[in-house]
Amino acid sequence: MAATRIESDSMGDIAVPADRYWGAQTQRSILNFPIGVDRFTWQPSMISALGILKKAAAQANAELGELPADIAALIVRAADEVIAGTLDDEFPLVVFQTGSGTQSNMNANEVISNRAIEMAGGTRGSKTPVHPNDHVNRGQSSNDTFPTAMHIAVAQELARRLFPSVGKLRDTLAQKADAYQDIVKTGRTHLQDATPITLGQEIGGWVAQIDFALDAVQSALPGIYDLAIGGTAVGTGLNAHRRFGELAAARIADITGLPFRSADNKFFALSAHDALVNLSAALRTLAGGLMKMANDVRWLASGPRCGIGELTIPDNEPGSSIMPGKVNPTQCEALTMVCVQVFGNDAATAFAGSQGNFQLNVYKPVMVHNVLESIELLADACVAFNDHCAIGIEPNHERIAENLDKNLMLVTALNRHIGYDKAAAIAKRAHKEKTSLRTAAVASGFVSDEQYDAWIKPIEMTRPS
Amino acid sequence: MAATRIESDSMGDIAVPADRYWGAQTQRSILNFPIGVDRFTWQPSMISALGILKKAAAQANAELGELPADIAALIVRAADEVIAGTLDDEFPLVVFQTGSGTQSNMNANEVISNRAIEMAGGTRGSKTPVHPNDHVNRGQSSNDTFPTAMHIAVAQELARRLFPSVGKLRDTLAQKADAYQDIVKTGRTHLQDATPITLGQEIGGWVAQIDFALDAVQSALPGIYDLAIGGTAVGTGLNAHRRFGELAAARIADITGLPFRSADNKFFALSAHDALVNLSAALRTLAGGLMKMANDVRWLASGPRCGIGELTIPDNEPGSSIMPGKVNPTQCEALTMVCVQVFGNDAATAFAGSQGNFQLNVYKPVMVHNVLESIELLADACVAFNDHCAIGIEPNHERIAENLDKNLMLVTALNRHIGYDKAAAIAKRAHKEKTSLRTAAVASGFVSDEQYDAWIKPIEMTRPS
Amino acid sequence: MAATRIESDSMGDIAVPADRYWGAQTQRSILNFPIGVDRFTWQPSMISALGILKKAAAQANAELGELPADIAALIVRAADEVIAGTLDDEFPLVVFQTGSGTQSNMNANEVISNRAIEMAGGTRGSKTPVHPNDHVNRGQSSNDTFPTAMHIAVAQELARRLFPSVGKLRDTLAQKADAYQDIVKTGRTHLQDATPITLGQEIGGWVAQIDFALDAVQSALPGIYDLAIGGTAVGTGLNAHRRFGELAAARIADITGLPFRSADNKFFALSAHDALVNLSAALRTLAGGLMKMANDVRWLASGPRCGIGELTIPDNEPGSSIMPGKVNPTQCEALTMVCVQVFGNDAATAFAGSQGNFQLNVYKPVMVHNVLESIELLADACVAFNDHCAIGIEPNHERIAENLDKNLMLVTALNRHIGYDKAAAIAKRAHKEKTSLRTAAVASGFVSDEQYDAWIKPIEMTRPS
Amino acid sequence: MAATRIESDSMGDIAVPADRYWGAQTQRSILNFPIGVDRFTWQPSMISALGILKKAAAQANAELGELPADIAALIVRAADEVIAGTLDDEFPLVVFQTGSGTQSNMNANEVISNRAIEMAGGTRGSKTPVHPNDHVNRGQSSNDTFPTAMHIAVAQELARRLFPSVGKLRDTLAQKADAYQDIVKTGRTHLQDATPITLGQEIGGWVAQIDFALDAVQSALPGIYDLAIGGTAVGTGLNAHRRFGELAAARIADITGLPFRSADNKFFALSAHDALVNLSAALRTLAGGLMKMANDVRWLASGPRCGIGELTIPDNEPGSSIMPGKVNPTQCEALTMVCVQVFGNDAATAFAGSQGNFQLNVYKPVMVHNVLESIELLADACVAFNDHCAIGIEPNHERIAENLDKNLMLVTALNRHIGYDKAAAIAKRAHKEKTSLRTAAVASGFVSDEQYDAWIKPIEMTRPS
Repeated sequence: MAATRIESDSMGDIAVPADRYWGAQTQRSILNFPIGVDRFTWQPSMISALGILKKAAAQANAELGELPADIAALIVRAADEVIAGTLDDEFPLVVFQTGSGTQSNMNANEVISNRAIEMAGGTRGSKTPVHPNDHVNRGQSSNDTFPTAMHIAVAQELARRLFPSVGKLRDTLAQKADAYQDIVKTGRTHLQDATPITLGQEIGGWVAQIDFALDAVQSALPGIYDLAIGGTAVGTGLNAHRRFGELAAARIADITGLPFRSADNKFFALSAHDALVNLSAALRTLAGGLMKMANDVRWLASGPRCGIGELTIPDNEPGSSIMPGKVNPTQCEALTMVCVQVFGNDAATAFAGSQGNFQLNVYKPVMVHNVLESIELLADACVAFNDHCAIGIEPNHERIAENLDKNLMLVTALNRHIGYDKAAAIAKRAHKEKTSLRTAAVASGFVSDEQYDAWIKPIEMTRPS
Repeated sequence: MAATRIESDSMGDIAVPADRYWGAQTQRSILNFPIGVDRFTWQPSMISALGILKKAAAQANAELGELPADIAALIVRAADEVIAGTLDDEFPLVVFQTGSGTQSNMNANEVISNRAIEMAGGTRGSKTPVHPNDHVNRGQSSNDTFPTAMHIAVAQELARRLFPSVGKLRDTLAQKADAYQDIVKTGRTHLQDATPITLGQEIGGWVAQIDFALDAVQSALPGIYDLAIGGTAVGTGLNAHRRFGELAAARIADITGLPFRSADNKFFALSAHDALVNLSAALRTLAGGLMKMANDVRWLASGPRCGIGELTIPDNEPGSSIMPGKVNPTQCEALTMVCVQVFGNDAATAFAGSQGNFQLNVYKPVMVHNVLESIELLADACVAFNDHCAIGIEPNHERIAENLDKNLMLVTALNRHIGYDKAAAIAKRAHKEKTSLRTAAVASGFVSDEQYDAWIKPIEMTRPS
Repeated sequence: MAATRIESDSMGDIAVPADRYWGAQTQRSILNFPIGVDRFTWQPSMISALGILKKAAAQANAELGELPADIAALIVRAADEVIAGTLDDEFPLVVFQTGSGTQSNMNANEVISNRAIEMAGGTRGSKTPVHPNDHVNRGQSSNDTFPTAMHIAVAQELARRLFPSVGKLRDTLAQKADAYQDIVKTGRTHLQDATPITLGQEIGGWVAQIDFALDAVQSALPGIYDLAIGGTAVGTGLNAHRRFGELAAARIADITGLPFRSADNKFFALSAHDALVNLSAALRTLAGGLMKMANDVRWLASGPRCGIGELTIPDNEPGSSIMPGKVNPTQCEALTMVCVQVFGNDAATAFAGSQGNFQLNVYKPVMVHNVLESIELLADACVAFNDHCAIGIEPNHERIAENLDKNLMLVTALNRHIGYDKAAAIAKRAHKEKTSLRTAAVASGFVSDEQYDAWIKPIEMTRPS
Repeated sequence: MAATRIESDSMGDIAVPADRYWGAQTQRSILNFPIGVDRFTWQPSMISALGILKKAAAQANAELGELPADIAALIVRAADEVIAGTLDDEFPLVVFQTGSGTQSNMNANEVISNRAIEMAGGTRGSKTPVHPNDHVNRGQSSNDTFPTAMHIAVAQELARRLFPSVGKLRDTLAQKADAYQDIVKTGRTHLQDATPITLGQEIGGWVAQIDFALDAVQSALPGIYDLAIGGTAVGTGLNAHRRFGELAAARIADITGLPFRSADNKFFALSAHDALVNLSAALRTLAGGLMKMANDVRWLASGPRCGIGELTIPDNEPGSSIMPGKVNPTQCEALTMVCVQVFGNDAATAFAGSQGNFQLNVYKPVMVHNVLESIELLADACVAFNDHCAIGIEPNHERIAENLDKNLMLVTALNRHIGYDKAAAIAKRAHKEKTSLRTAAVASGFVSDEQYDAWIKPIEMTRPS
C-alpha cells in the first residue's frame, strides 16, 4: 500500500496518494467513476487548456485586485507546468464523470494549488497559502471554466495539428495535380467510361474538396473563440468581478496567440455547445471528402491486372506473401476507417449537444472528447497517408493510355465533323464488333486515318473550347 | 367556402367540413399542426391499423359486457371500412402532432363514430348512438392504442411487403448463384486481384447476407407482436376491464392472422418503443447488405471497356445519347439511395427512442413513420431492382476469362508442385515483364506447357481440397 | 385505357399519356422506378428550380449565339410556367431514380420542349421546333444541371421559408426575453436548484442559441451559391461554350435575386456535394438548439401541480377529457419530433455525401430531398410553435415566486455579510429542518428579518456586480 | 538508441527492438501507421482472442496432421501466454492499420513464433523451429483469422463483462421495484401529472426495458458465434485442410466455453460483418433504455426544492460548496454520456459495415474496436451507476405524498360514483381556486369527507380492477 496523506473537501476527509498533487475531489472521482479507465483519461490538449485557463484567470484576478499578486504569481508558475505537460500524470480522471466537468476543473485547482503550495514551501493539502477554491478557482465555476477549456483545447489542436497535417496532404496533392495536368485519361461517371479528363483535373478535384472542407472548419472557428468564462454558475457572473470574463479571455488570447474573446451571451455559452457541434460537423465534411479521395485512389490503383490500375501507390508492407504486385491500399484503408470514426464521433457530439437543460448542458466532457479525438485522428491519418501514400502516387502511363485509347466516348469529338448520327454509328459498330474506335471509324468510310488523328485529340476534349 | 357543421369536444364547438366524418379534435389538429402537410399524412398501413385496433377493441368490449352488442356491431362495420382503406381521405392529420398520437387516435374515434352513426341513421356530430370516446375509445387511451396500432401497421407491412419483395430479389439472386456455380473468375480483396472464386460463390455471398438480414428482421418480430393495449393512460390499465388487453390482442391476432399478444409489462410498452428501435436496426442491417450487393453489381458491371466489366446488366434507359454500351447502373443507384435513406430513418428512430420520460415516450408518430417508410422503400426498391436489374444480370464470359487468365494469383496453385520460391519467381517475372503467367512459367523452365494446363486449374482452387 | 401518343428517345419508341407534356425518358423512369411513389415525388421547389435553370440556360445560350433567339424565347416562356408551378403535375418522377437526377433533368427538358412546341403551334413529341436535348438541354448535362437545380432550390427555400419562419419564432422569443427581464426565478444546473436568473435571461439564452444556428446556416450559404453549371458531363465543360457556365449562373442570379455564381472547380462541383452536407449540418445545429428550447419550455410548463410549473403555455386541444389544467405541450412534441427527423435526414445526407466516385456523386436526388425536407419541416414547425405556443408563453408568477423563495441557493448572498461558514450553517439548517431560508436565518441569530430583506435581493444576484 | 535485431519478411530486412518478440511486419506497421497511438492500441480482449485463435488453429492443424505435434505444442504454450495477457505489451499496433487487420494477425504470428522459438531454445527472428507464417498462420489468412478473433473477443466481453455488469444493475432495480411496490405516486405523461402508479411499477418499467435490451443482445449472439475461420483468403478455403474451419471452431468453443461454430457461408463471413452491426444495434438499444432510466432518475431526484424531488440519490461528491442538499446526479450524467458514446460508436460501426467490396470488408478493425468499446463502457458505467447511485435510490416519502395529494388526476376515481360531469366540475374548481381536490370535492356538495376517503384510494387506481 502506497503512502497516503489526508485531503479534505466539503464532504470531509479522504486519503490520497502521498506523492500526488491532486486532492480530495479528484480522489473521489477516481473512486466513483471507474469507467473506461486509461483509454478515456483526458487528452493532453485538454489538460494543457485547463492550465492556460487557470493561468489567465489568476492574471485577470490579480489585475482586478481580486487576488494578491504573490498568490497569483504562484498560481501562474504552477499552471505553467500544467501547460507544459509535465504534470499530465496528475490528471487521472476520465471523460465519463460529472457532465459539467466539475471534477476535472477541481483536479486542475487541486494540482495547481498543491504544486503552488510546494513552490511556496508549504504543505500539500494544507490549502495554504494557495487555496484550490478561493484562489485557483477564484471568480469561476466549473460551469464556465470547463467549456472555456474545451474551446481552448479544440482551437489549439486545430492550429497545431489539424491545419498543418491536412494542409501537408493537400499540398502534396496540389503538386501532383500540377505535375499531371497534361496526362489525359478516361473520365468516369456512374462508374462508367466517360469523356476524357486529365489526371491533374481529377486530383485537382480532390484538392478543391479538401480546401472546401478546411474553409468549413475555419468558418466554425469564431464560435470556438467565444469563451464562457465570466458566466460562473448559471451565466449571470455571480461572484466574479464584472470585468473578469473579458480580462480572462484577453489573457487566454495572449497566452495562446489565438483570438479568443468573452462570449456575448453566457447563458447560451453554458447551456449549449453548438460551436462544438458545428465544428464537429465541419470535421465530418472533411472526413467525407477524404473518404471520397481515398476511395478514388484505391479504385484507380486497383488491380494490378484485373482492376483499373491507372495509378500506382507505394508498396509499404507485404500484401500477400506469394503475389508480387499485389499492393494493398492500406493507407486508404486506415484513412477511411478514421473517416467512419469521425462520422461516429460526430453523431455522438451532435446527440449530446441537443440534450441541454435549463442553464447547463451536462454532456460537456463527452462532446469535447469526441471533437478532440476526431481532430487528432484526422491529423495523424493525413500525415500517414501523405507520407506513405500520397507522395508516392504515380500514374501508370501505359494503362492510362490503353484505357483512353479504347474508351468509346472519344467518339464525341467526331460529332462536329461528321455529325451525330454517323459518329453514333461508328461507336455502335466499335462496341458491337469489339474493335477500336479508330478501326470502326476508318471501316465506316466516314473518317480516314489522318482525319482520325486530326479530329480525335483527347487533350482538347479536356479544355474549354 | 365549403359547407360546415359544428362538432364539439371538451374545449367547445368548432366548425368542420360538412362532408367529412372527422370531428372536433381532428379539426383542431389540422389547424394547429400545418407541418409537412401532404407528405407527412399517415401511411395507409397506419390508418388501417387504427381500424383493426378499433374493431378488435369493440369486439373485446362486447365480449366483456363493456359495450352493448349493437353498438359494437356498428363500430365493427365502420372500422371495417377504415381497414379496407375506403375512408383514407378522412385521415388528414400529419406525423408531426402530439407525440402520443392522441389526435390520430381521436381521428379514428371520430371517423368511426360518425360513420357508425350514419349507418345507424343518426346525425354526424351527434355522438349518438355511437360516442367517439365512450364507445369507440372504450377502455382505451391514446397512450396504449397508438403504440398498438404502430405495431400492427409495422407487422403487417413486413408480412405484406417487405418479406415478399426482398424475398423475390433473394430468390432471383439464389437462382443466379446456382446457375453460375461453375463460372470461375478472379476474386478480389482490398480491391486487388486475389485467388479465384466462382461467380456462383460471389453471388451466393450476397444471398447469405440478405438471408442473414431477413433473419435479423424476424428476430425483431416478437417485440413487435407485444401490444400495449390494456395499459390505458399510464400502464396500470385504469378504466379498462382487467381482461381487456388480453382479449383485444387476441382479436387483433384473429383479424390479422399474426401472433399478436398483450405485452407483459405495460409500463415499458408505453414509455419506450425499443421493439421498433430494434426492428429499425434490423432494417438498417438489411440496407447495409443491399448496399454492399448493389455496389458489387455496379463495380462488376463497370466499363464497358475501362472498368471491370465482368457482369452485364439490363439497359433500361438512355444513359448517354452518344455512347452505345454505356449502361448506367441506375437500379443500383436507386437502391443505394434507398439504403442511405434507411440509415437516416434509423438514426431518427433510435434518437427518438431514447427520449422517453416517465410513463410515456412522446415521439411515437415520428418513430413509426420512419420505420414504415424504411419498410416500404426497401420493399419497392427490391422489386424494382429485381425486375429491372437482377433478373437480367449476365456474366460477360469473355471478360471474366480474360481477367482470370491474366490474374497472377493463379500462381498459388504451383506451390505444391515446384515449391513456393520458384512459384514466386515466376509470378515476379510475369509482373515485371508484363507477360502472362503461362509465358513466364514456361520461360522459367520449371513448368512445361502441359504441366501448366495440368496444374493450374482455377476451378479446383475454388473448391475445398 | 387513357389515350396515348408515341414519344421516342435513343432507345426507341414508347407510349406516353396523350395529355401529358412529358416524353419518353420520363415515361421510362415511371416504369422503372416505382419506389415510394407519391410521397417521394419532387418538392415543388425542386421543380421550380429546374425551370429557373432551363430559363437561364436558354438566355445564356441565346446571348452566346448558341441558340436562335426565337427558340430561346419559346423555352423561356415554357420554363416560366414550370417556375410558376402550373406544370407541377407534369413532374411525376420520384427521388429514387438515377443517382445523377438525369431523368428529372430530362423530364424538365421534355416538358419544356413539348410545352414550347405547343406554344409554337407544333405537335407534342415532334421535337420540332424545340428539341429537348439539342435546345432545352443545350450545353448541359444532367451532371451539371441537376446539382445546379439542387442549389437553386435549397437557396430559395432558405430565403423564402426557413429564415422568415425561424426568424418569426426568434423574434417572439426575443420579445418575451425583453418583457420578462425583471422576473427573477430559480436557475437550474444538473436539474438542481441553483442561483437565480431572470426569466428574460433564460429566454434570452434560447434566442442566442437560435441566432447562433441561423448564423451557421448563413455561413453555409456561399457554398450553395456556387453552381456546377458549365461543367457538363465530367467537369471539363465539353460541348458547352466556354462562357456558358458563367453567364448561366448570372442569369440564375438575376431570376432569383440571390448571389449565385459559377463554381471555381467544376470537378468538385459534380463529384461531391459538400456544400449541402455543410448546410444539412447547420440545420442539424438549428434542430439541436430548437430541441433544447422546446424541452426547456415543456419542463418549465410541467405540472400543473407536480412539476415545475413556472410557465404556462396555450391550451390548444383537449389533453385529457377529465383533467382541467392538464395542458400537454403538444407543440413542443411536434417540434422535437421534427428535430429528430432533421437529425435523421442529416445522417442520410452526410452518408450520401461521402459516397462519390471519380467524376460523379450519384446520390444527388436523395441528398437534396433530405435537405429540402429538413428546411420545410423546420420552417413549418417553427411557425406552428410560434403561433400556437411561443406567443402564448406566460410566467406563472406565483409558482416562480414560491420556487424562488424556497430556493436555498439564495444563501449565497449572505456570504459577503456574515461569512461563508455561517451562511452554510443556515442553509444546512433550513435543509435539515425543512424550513424556509428566512426562518433558518433568523433562527440562527446571525441575521435579522430586516437584514434578510436587505441582504437577500435575488434580482441583484442576476446582475454583474 | 535501444538495441535492435534484424527481422525479415517478403519485403526484406528491418530492425526491431532486440527485447521485443514482434517481427518485421509489426515493425513496419508501427512505422507506417502512427495514428491515434496509445489510445487506439488493441483492447486486451482482442489480443487474447488472437491468442485463442492461434492456439485453436495449432490444435486443429495438429489433429489434421498439418502440423507436427511438437511444433503445435510450442505454439499452444506461447499462445497461452498471449491469452493470459502477459504479452500484451508485445502488441503495439493500433486500430487504424490495414483494413483486414493483417498486421495484427501477423503481430500475433510473430510474437507467438518468437516466444515459441525462445521456449524451444532457438533464436528470435530465426523463424526456426516455429515459423510465423508456415506454422502459426498455417491454413489461415488474415481475412479469416481477424474476423474470427473479432467474434471471439466480442463474445467473451459480453459474457465476462456486459451481462454481469448490466445484470447487476438490473437486479438492484428489480429489488427496488419489489421493495417499493406499494408506494403510490403521481404518474406522469407528456411531463404532466397523470393518474397514479406505484414507485415499484415505475422502476419495474425500467427493469422490463433493460431485460428487453439484454434479450436483444442475446438475439444477436448466434451471428457472433459463427466464425470465418476456414475461409482463408477469399472464402474458398484455399490452402486450408477441408476440415480445418470446423475443427478450429470446435477448439475455440472448447477453450472459451462458448458455442462457437464454423460459419456456413465463408464468403459472407469475410465480406460483411453484419453480426457485429446487429450486435452494435442491440447495444444501442440498451444504451437508449439506460438513457431513459437515468433521465427518469435525475428528474425524479431533481430539486431539492424546486424540482420533482420524489427520489433521493446518494451524495457522492461535493456538488456545490455552499449548497447543502444540492446533490448533482453525476452518475446519471456519466451513464448518459456513455450512452451517447455508444450511439456514436454504433453509427461508425454500421457505416463501416456497409462499405464492403467483393470478397472483403476492409473496415474490420474499426468495427470491432467500436463494438468492444461500447461493451466495455456500458459494463463499467452500469457498475458505477449501480454501486454509487442505484443501490442508494430512496423514495422521498414526504414529497411523494405531497405530490400525490395535490394531483388533480385523482378525480378520475370519482367518475363511477358521481358521474363524469360532477367529477370534472370538482377538478375544475380545485384548479381554478387552487385548492386541494378534497376541499373542492367537499365544497361541491357532491362528496362528503368520508366519501372522499372511501372513494379516492390511489393505490386502487394502480391495480387492474
